[in-house]
Amino acid sequence: MTKDNTVFVGNKPVMNYVLAVVTQFNNGADEVSIKARGRAISRAVDTAEISLNKFLDNVEKKNIATSTEVIDTDSGRTNVSSIEIILSLNSV
Amino acid sequence: MTKDNTVFVGNKPVMNYVLAVVTQFNNGADEVSIKARGRAISRAVDTAEISLNKFLDNVEKKNIATSTEVIDTDSGRTNVSSIEIILSLNSV
Repeated sequence: MTKDNTVFVGNKPVMNYVLAVVTQFNNGADEVSIKARGRAISRAVDTAEISLNKFLDNVEKKNIATSTEVIDTDSGRTNVSSIEIILSLNSV
Repeated sequence: MTKDNTVFVGNKPVMNYVLAVVTQFNNGADEVSIKARGRAISRAVDTAEISLNKFLDNVEKKNIATSTEVIDTDSGRTNVSSIEIILSLNSV
């Protein structure tokens, strides 16, 4: 099993991403990373909260980190905020 | 000085909230809490990132927490995600 279980949250309905997270845990992942940038950050938080509250037992938020990324666009460089939420199986 | 230095982020331009955060530190706060719900979560992350990268020296992210709040609306109860980002003076 690979260690790179990352779900990138974009502009689709939140349940798409919840399903992706839950599926990764059901497939045996110990840890899933939820990442998003810009306005999708709110949806990433929704994804984590809904996954934890409604679908996943024995999983907890391990870490939440925010950062600033520099993006090249047609009109030059711009900064965009990003978030990474790591969900992890409880080691009980 | 009160310990309750909280900036609630809503739908105004992000620089309004950055200014509020920076002002609290300039007024002697050791710690400022940035809170938001729902779609304003992205803007709360922007507020923290811009404050830290462009305006505040010697301040760091102390903690980031997300949670789910239950809100009563006209059409019944609904869940909304929330975030709290705590910025704190470095204790060097």
